[in-house]
Amino acid sequence: MTTATSVITLTTDFGTSDGFVGTMKGVILSINPQATIVDITHDIAPQNVEQGAFVLAASARYFPPNAIHVVVVDPGVGSARRPIAVQQGDTFYVAPDNGILSLALQSTIKNQQHLHRTQVQVSSIPRAFHLNRPQFWLPRVSSTFHGRDIFAPCAAHLSLGVSLEAMGEPITDWVRMARVLPSRRGDGAIVGRVAHIDRFGNIVTNIGEEMLEGADRERMVIEIAGKKIAGLKRAYADGAQGELIALISSSWELEIAQREGNAAQVLGVRVGDEVVVLS
Amino acid sequence: MTTATSVITLTTDFGTSDGFVGTMKGVILSINPQATIVDITHDIAPQNVEQGAFVLAASARYFPPNAIHVVVVDPGVGSARRPIAVQQGDTFYVAPDNGILSLALQSTIKNQQHLHRTQVQVSSIPRAFHLNRPQFWLPRVSSTFHGRDIFAPCAAHLSLGVSLEAMGEPITDWVRMARVLPSRRGDGAIVGRVAHIDRFGNIVTNIGEEMLEGADRERMVIEIAGKKIAGLKRAYADGAQGELIALISSSWELEIAQREGNAAQVLGVRVGDEVVVLS
Amino acid sequence: MTTATSVITLTTDFGTSDGFVGTMKGVILSINPQATIVDITHDIAPQNVEQGAFVLAASARYFPPNAIHVVVVDPGVGSARRPIAVQQGDTFYVAPDNGILSLALQSTIKNQQHLHRTQVQVSSIPRAFHLNRPQFWLPRVSSTFHGRDIFAPCAAHLSLGVSLEAMGEPITDWVRMARVLPSRRGDGAIVGRVAHIDRFGNIVTNIGEEMLEGADRERMVIEIAGKKIAGLKRAYADGAQGELIALISSSWELEIAQREGNAAQVLGVRVGDEVVVLS
Repeated sequence: MTTATSVITLTTDFGTSDGFVGTMKGVILSINPQATIVDITHDIAPQNVEQGAFVLAASARYFPPNAIHVVVVDPGVGSARRPIAVQQGDTFYVAPDNGILSLALQSTIKNQQHLHRTQVQVSSIPRAFHLNRPQFWLPRVSSTFHGRDIFAPCAAHLSLGVSLEAMGEPITDWVRMARVLPSRRGDGAIVGRVAHIDRFGNIVTNIGEEMLEGADRERMVIEIAGKKIAGLKRAYADGAQGELIALISSSWELEIAQREGNAAQVLGVRVGDEVVVLS
Repeated sequence: MTTATSVITLTTDFGTSDGFVGTMKGVILSINPQATIVDITHDIAPQNVEQGAFVLAASARYFPPNAIHVVVVDPGVGSARRPIAVQQGDTFYVAPDNGILSLALQSTIKNQQHLHRTQVQVSSIPRAFHLNRPQFWLPRVSSTFHGRDIFAPCAAHLSLGVSLEAMGEPITDWVRMARVLPSRRGDGAIVGRVAHIDRFGNIVTNIGEEMLEGADRERMVIEIAGKKIAGLKRAYADGAQGELIALISSSWELEIAQREGNAAQVLGVRVGDEVVVLS
Repeated sequence: MTTATSVITLTTDFGTSDGFVGTMKGVILSINPQATIVDITHDIAPQNVEQGAFVLAASARYFPPNAIHVVVVDPGVGSARRPIAVQQGDTFYVAPDNGILSLALQSTIKNQQHLHRTQVQVSSIPRAFHLNRPQFWLPRVSSTFHGRDIFAPCAAHLSLGVSLEAMGEPITDWVRMARVLPSRRGDGAIVGRVAHIDRFGNIVTNIGEEMLEGADRERMVIEIAGKKIAGLKRAYADGAQGELIALISSSWELEIAQREGNAAQVLGVRVGDEVVVLS
């Protein structure tokens, strides 16, 4: 199913000062010395599942077929929450069952069309498994570091070609995190949320560009933090100095930015805050 | 002895903003283009040899056989302190001779039993060498960056199969840092130290779980920063909100944590502070 | 020209908290699964082209032949500034055309002599190309993230052996950033600038050691921030506690440091400030 040359990515809230990430890589390489390991980020805010869901979804779609994305933002470590693995098309995920995969699994064939891939994903229906076979974990499992003891070794075995069926029970009731997905009000307005605030203070929402299709880009109004922003700009440079503008982000979602400024600071918004689009 | 596919890890206090780490990787790949390089961490507090010793020991044991761990926390760079390489069992270390390997070299066969390894380490007696053969260094050695000029190239040559004997003189008087190891008082109490404070403020000590064997986990008392903590909990979730608890860390050492809080801040402790266990 | 095993390095101002860097790696590995990717740093101060130029130059020379250095510090993203690729000797660069390669391309054969390389670079005349062939970009190009959409894919194709000629038009008018290079006054004084301030507050200038040749190291005077420092020391340890000293940096440039202190803070200097050497 996968091959020994699969890429394994890591997205966590571990930071990089404690050696936790290096340890996970040691475990992976002990099981599959040929694995190519890539960091997406380790600076997800501690236990912020929503932010992790967004960063993963924005990045995962740019990885090659058979990539295995390991995501460890895990407030429930040591509790009864399940470790799971999910396959969607040619992409694999290994994570705690807390909804963190919800956005990535929403990626549709349409979203992939602008990528380099020539092959079409024949199926976007996710297949999920409860990783409940200890023979694929480390022999001793701590109560605080399942990234090392369960998620890393399962991902490594997966990269060696072990099937998901061998590693756990199929499940269908994995956690969906509805709040990370935008919805439509009765009046047609789109109700979304702040999904991520980047290093420069740009506010990325969970409202995908495809939801704005058919709307008049010049006349739409974006409401956020009690302010109204009119129209979509094409690029940062199209705003006046200090102006709050809306545009399509590099991850193809609605973004609010301030020309040469920090929009998140100016508006005082945080991940999870509401954003409404009236058109 | 080693092979071209060995993993080389890096643990330093260089941070990641200056390009120092990237430069070391360039040197390694110039000598062994097949090396797999893994960062353990580069955020050891500047010149904090004790913290470096702990983070290395916690992580190194999870790497595959023939891993070469390069450790550069080096207050004595440019002075007479020796660059050394040490082999213990199937693991290699390259570092300044300042005691930073002391904890890693304490790892016993017993400590390895919970890992994935099936092979048994036949010997745990370290073999140490003074890396004093300049033909394995870069041609020009700076007085401030031996990580690039000596440690990285020596590790790379080692990964290509050059023997330790070829790279330097055998030594037995390498520096042991006694203070990183716990001891036992006349009254049977264990006297250890704070070895590391992680990103979440959890206080990890240098007192390994094996030292607590035979003690009554419910009745033991941990003294730290003038406070007493009674009994060992199994997991963070077993503490009440805000309660200071003791438990076994993910690196199998005694740890003091605060449920949903920052224990190090609350107690005002720092790396090196004393911890006593009465049982 | 290059081979499938070339090293690709990344130097950006993206930070590591947003997943931008991971995404670029996904794009590279999608095109060349065999690429070895190395981070130089992602902590260049936002849009600080001068600092990026320095860090790149200090690190790039330590990478193996055929290394491809991708540099994305790009205040002009989305504007008319060109994406370019440059070959000098056996080293390749991919970057926005904003002068960020100026220092790296100054590296001369002489500068390489202290490295491990045995082969001599037969030519140091740079060959530059405007990367204007969209078939080597991602199919859809955003207006804010050319690192992912243009620079990463071009570097990956280059690493697969695509020629520079195929990827763009040859150009000769690429941007030189004169201010990153030191000059000589009528009175013989060398006028340089602060090129970088490292993690420890050491002030590295753009004045290469070779410019100091022939000068009396004991009698030269360095002027910075209204202070005068006399003579060059050999190592940090040669200064008295708290003394401001000048020495040759690990990147073989003039450096100002304070023994066990933070020179940049004490002097209040910033990247770009003037440094004069009188001899």
